[in-house]
Amino acid sequence: MTETVKQAKVVFQPSGRRGTFPVGTPLLDAARSLGVYVESVCGGRGICGRCQISISEGTFTKENLTSAAENLEGATEAETRYATLRKLPADRRLSCQAKILGDLVIDVPTDAQTNRQVVRKRAEARNIEADSPISLVSVSIAEPDMETPRGDIDRLREALIAETGIADLTIDPVLLPRVQTILRKGNWQVTAAIHEDRGVLPTLVALWPGEKPAVYGLAVDIGSTTIAAHLCNLQNGRTVSSAGTSNPQIRFGEDLMSRVSYVQMNPSKLPDLTKAVRDAINALIGKLVGDVGAERTDVLDATFVGNPVMHHLFLGIDPVELGGAPFALAASDAMILNARDLDLELNPGARVYMLPCIAGHVGADAAAATLAESPYKLDEITLLVDVGTNAEIVLGNRNRLLAASSPTGPAFEGAEISSGQRAAPGAIERIRIDKETLEPRFKVIGVDEWSDEEGFAEKVDTVGVTGICGSGIIEAVAEMYLAGLITEDGVIDGSMAERTSRVKSTGRTFSYLIADDGVEISILQTDIRAIQLAKGALYAGVKLLQDKLGTYDLDRIRLAGAFGSYIDPKYAMILGLIPDCPLEGVSGVGNAAGTGARMALLNRGYRREIEQTVRDIEKIETALEPKFQEHFVNAMALPNKVDQFPHLRAAVELPVRKEADAGSDAAGGERRRRRRRG
Amino acid sequence: MTETVKQAKVVFQPSGRRGTFPVGTPLLDAARSLGVYVESVCGGRGICGRCQISISEGTFTKENLTSAAENLEGATEAETRYATLRKLPADRRLSCQAKILGDLVIDVPTDAQTNRQVVRKRAEARNIEADSPISLVSVSIAEPDMETPRGDIDRLREALIAETGIADLTIDPVLLPRVQTILRKGNWQVTAAIHEDRGVLPTLVALWPGEKPAVYGLAVDIGSTTIAAHLCNLQNGRTVSSAGTSNPQIRFGEDLMSRVSYVQMNPSKLPDLTKAVRDAINALIGKLVGDVGAERTDVLDATFVGNPVMHHLFLGIDPVELGGAPFALAASDAMILNARDLDLELNPGARVYMLPCIAGHVGADAAAATLAESPYKLDEITLLVDVGTNAEIVLGNRNRLLAASSPTGPAFEGAEISSGQRAAPGAIERIRIDKETLEPRFKVIGVDEWSDEEGFAEKVDTVGVTGICGSGIIEAVAEMYLAGLITEDGVIDGSMAERTSRVKSTGRTFSYLIADDGVEISILQTDIRAIQLAKGALYAGVKLLQDKLGTYDLDRIRLAGAFGSYIDPKYAMILGLIPDCPLEGVSGVGNAAGTGARMALLNRGYRREIEQTVRDIEKIETALEPKFQEHFVNAMALPNKVDQFPHLRAAVELPVRKEADAGSDAAGGERRRRRRRG
Repeated sequence: MTETVKQAKVVFQPSGRRGTFPVGTPLLDAARSLGVYVESVCGGRGICGRCQISISEGTFTKENLTSAAENLEGATEAETRYATLRKLPADRRLSCQAKILGDLVIDVPTDAQTNRQVVRKRAEARNIEADSPISLVSVSIAEPDMETPRGDIDRLREALIAETGIADLTIDPVLLPRVQTILRKGNWQVTAAIHEDRGVLPTLVALWPGEKPAVYGLAVDIGSTTIAAHLCNLQNGRTVSSAGTSNPQIRFGEDLMSRVSYVQMNPSKLPDLTKAVRDAINALIGKLVGDVGAERTDVLDATFVGNPVMHHLFLGIDPVELGGAPFALAASDAMILNARDLDLELNPGARVYMLPCIAGHVGADAAAATLAESPYKLDEITLLVDVGTNAEIVLGNRNRLLAASSPTGPAFEGAEISSGQRAAPGAIERIRIDKETLEPRFKVIGVDEWSDEEGFAEKVDTVGVTGICGSGIIEAVAEMYLAGLITEDGVIDGSMAERTSRVKSTGRTFSYLIADDGVEISILQTDIRAIQLAKGALYAGVKLLQDKLGTYDLDRIRLAGAFGSYIDPKYAMILGLIPDCPLEGVSGVGNAAGTGARMALLNRGYRREIEQTVRDIEKIETALEPKFQEHFVNAMALPNKVDQFPHLRAAVELPVRKEADAGSDAAGGERRRRRRRG
Repeated sequence: MTETVKQAKVVFQPSGRRGTFPVGTPLLDAARSLGVYVESVCGGRGICGRCQISISEGTFTKENLTSAAENLEGATEAETRYATLRKLPADRRLSCQAKILGDLVIDVPTDAQTNRQVVRKRAEARNIEADSPISLVSVSIAEPDMETPRGDIDRLREALIAETGIADLTIDPVLLPRVQTILRKGNWQVTAAIHEDRGVLPTLVALWPGEKPAVYGLAVDIGSTTIAAHLCNLQNGRTVSSAGTSNPQIRFGEDLMSRVSYVQMNPSKLPDLTKAVRDAINALIGKLVGDVGAERTDVLDATFVGNPVMHHLFLGIDPVELGGAPFALAASDAMILNARDLDLELNPGARVYMLPCIAGHVGADAAAATLAESPYKLDEITLLVDVGTNAEIVLGNRNRLLAASSPTGPAFEGAEISSGQRAAPGAIERIRIDKETLEPRFKVIGVDEWSDEEGFAEKVDTVGVTGICGSGIIEAVAEMYLAGLITEDGVIDGSMAERTSRVKSTGRTFSYLIADDGVEISILQTDIRAIQLAKGALYAGVKLLQDKLGTYDLDRIRLAGAFGSYIDPKYAMILGLIPDCPLEGVSGVGNAAGTGARMALLNRGYRREIEQTVRDIEKIETALEPKFQEHFVNAMALPNKVDQFPHLRAAVELPVRKEADAGSDAAGGERRRRRRRG
């Protein structure tokens, strides 16, 4: 290794991060090694187009380099195809495709245009009666008097006690330097905000001269991928603005466990992850208050939900204990904190309510979703599932409620799937396969028409057909099963190659071609295996809870989260992703965690309700249950090896059981327990 | 200066600080240059006995030196006198007197025993029974368990509640990021510090793995000129270390009102004044904990006292309202705050108790002095005076207690006096005038002999005669009055120029020459006027309180603060600075405010006691009282125009009343009300 590799200097703008790299380094790798976030969801295949950058040409004296377009390798075949199909602007390149040939100054576009991921996190419509911990009290106080030289803030406190009857009222010290100016500005007439909630002393937290008509609260759902925030009027309970943004922690690790590993490997970087999420939330706050013409200081309360890792990272707690058994939470109970101690740019006296976590892998987001759906108030038995890389499962009714998590992995989000991608324009989201011709028709995000409808061909040009998202994969596998393309064991039936050229041999196994619009989109045997493993884990977790509950009767299934909102319940059931249940009892509930966060923000009764529910809930650790493995193996089959799905069979004609020509042994070989919490 | 001076190594214990010094360096100077705090209040004159140390003899291999008693210069005359009169233990030396002759290991005693021996400062050696808000609780908690996935800190809280019975125990969020590591390091056995006090919820504030034997508290008196701090063991109540430093705010203004004006003119600089005092306190903390080999994180509680301006500036509150009527305090009540919010470098969970302020010019320092002297517990009527640029006055007994302030101005500190200076070597501190010859004799700080004693002439060369300090001015004016040099109206009697050349005409008025050792030191008519105005204001304030109390009987007078400790009660009474009282009932009480701060630090009972006392105390605003002016005019005379001073007359022969030849009109012209709060 004595060969000298030529080195090139690369500077990324607007961050200004720079480094020296061997000629031939892919530009995307260079960006990542410097911590410059360039999105890429297609795995560097030149399909998703997210990784666009442009080159700043010229001589940069400060950087002591000359940047030229020819210092970046020419377009690959994939990039040329993308440029043709998707109209890549002339000054843009795909950083995943291009290698560094010499010195470069690279502009990473920050416009939403590029990062046009669909943030499906609107506030669900729900009327929430307001009973906020924050109350506004208007009060006049006597002017200072030399004969009774009591401090201004102490006289104010007395006046508030006289007005409200709150004898043990305390004062947030943050008001100390401000109180004299405010009292004089209001000519001794002021509006006080008092915070009252369980476990803390009633506290004067904010003060305004004269009258203050409205104050706001913030409800935030911190997801691993997306952060969604809602601004609510604390007096009338109305949600006045909502916004979402990507979780910037993604640059430290795509999924939860890779972020935990990152902190484990780089303990000194924990503050960076915490700062990243807090900065993103502060930016969201600016957007939300700007939308309604309010000020950051008008926001006096906030609630936060998230899975345990997000919860801990937001609080600045090292999540490493969550990375291995016994998955010990540092803190699980609900907490009231000062927003300023979390570096949140709100009113300096604003408070924060953290919803409780249920268990080491069942977080405050699951608690919030439980609050939103309140299965504990019903006689009917409800299954509430939030599908993510780790599915959070709650099952039961007013008599008994159980919770667990199941390690589904990221397959439902399009990862580990050969043509998988996030839900974004160009992704196949729906699919139907004709049982006779075995020809597929599909729908693409961003185009209203189905692929066999008039106008599709022209319209799809603007977005392309770039991959297949979570809901598309579910339908593809389920439709392949219904069409007889795969066996109940999930093996692609090679004998079907006689009937359609879309089934092709790929060596020992087969694939099924869905589209070939420049990019070939096929379902491979490995894709089906990934889906089987994910759905098997989820189903096994649910089944365990049913065992514990002592009944397999199920009245309602509620699918929370973005994925749950977009999958068709019927296909989820055909796949055996969810257990049998009257089909009309299954529905998506959108961002239930966000709804729960708003409920807890606006009404203290809901805080008590979820605190009590989380205490009462029975926590099942699937990793400890011997029957999990048996349930998991049975759940690998479509829809299930042993469970009969009577409601489903009444609604849908399922194929008769058949054995495949090939691959069933291979399938059995994959019936291993997945790596936990991947 | 090519001569080589022999160097010696000196190590101070228990701090372990070490340095190399030229032979001949005074040991006290060596200690100070290393930041080792050795108390000394007499200016290095071998009088106060605070600077006691002992020598550790032997060969110290680790230090590579041999320490021997003969390596410290033998006792000086002053030390021998102190040892004889005050029974200096055989192993103790006075570090201010001894010079370094060779290598030494020095033990600085940290026991209260050493810091006891000062004239008129018995309060500082007070035994305080410990009942701190901080208690240490040793507890074991169960390891985390997947079946009951409660957060580590929540299980810890439950274990502490079970152990202590404190049902509403809360947790300082500052522990959240630390709790998991500490629990595991202690193998699930930890020591918790719980803070319990009135007006706040009981809170877990700190946590250590395993056992924690001792924790400390800090009591701080923030004076305009000097900041004094004491470190106390919170378990046994002992003061283990004390230190003082100049208040660096002095660069923003010499006295209180000039600092208030500075902030008024430069509002953006308020944070600089706050930071200056906090930085100085943080440096003191480092010194204090270093002295006893402790860590900053071992300090869990702190109390602060100071006059209202110091109190507000320390808290970051703009003091401008205190600069004019109605002198409105932003906050007067006692407060519990988080030390971290005040940027104090203590344990992150440490708490702060601010003693209450009594009124706009009667601060938490006066409250603390009142606590230390507790006149409210006695039948005898006590007058407690803290003399500064603004005198704080408390009068009464168990039945009734009154407080006021009086604008004495800085004359008592040597300012506004032509030859005035602070108490420091070279300053005249005592003076006697022969009634026949009208010749003065005096004593200078830094020289043991009086000016007419043998050896004075030689010894005074080292310090010079540079000015006259507060106690010297009091005695000078009183002795001039006793000698007939000035009338009871305070006018220098020009006719006395016939009897002594020391009385000289200066135009319309006369002066009296005390010394002319290079620097001419005279008492001018304007100097006497300044003293009259200052003492008149103080006396008028006291008289007003006596009016309110309805009695002029007085059993005890307690003079707090440095000035109060050094003036001779007899001269103070001759001057009419304090009212008539049995002379044996008058004494200085040293840093009573610091003592009160320590009492409030160590025992919650004292906190309740001073809170109740400050509520009950009757606050008199002298500016509002019509009789103030009349009392003030009468108090311009020596000792007073109308009050008879029977106890004083019984002890001292006062001159018969006489009229001056000149200047009485001028004196009358100056009988105006002083600028308030100068």
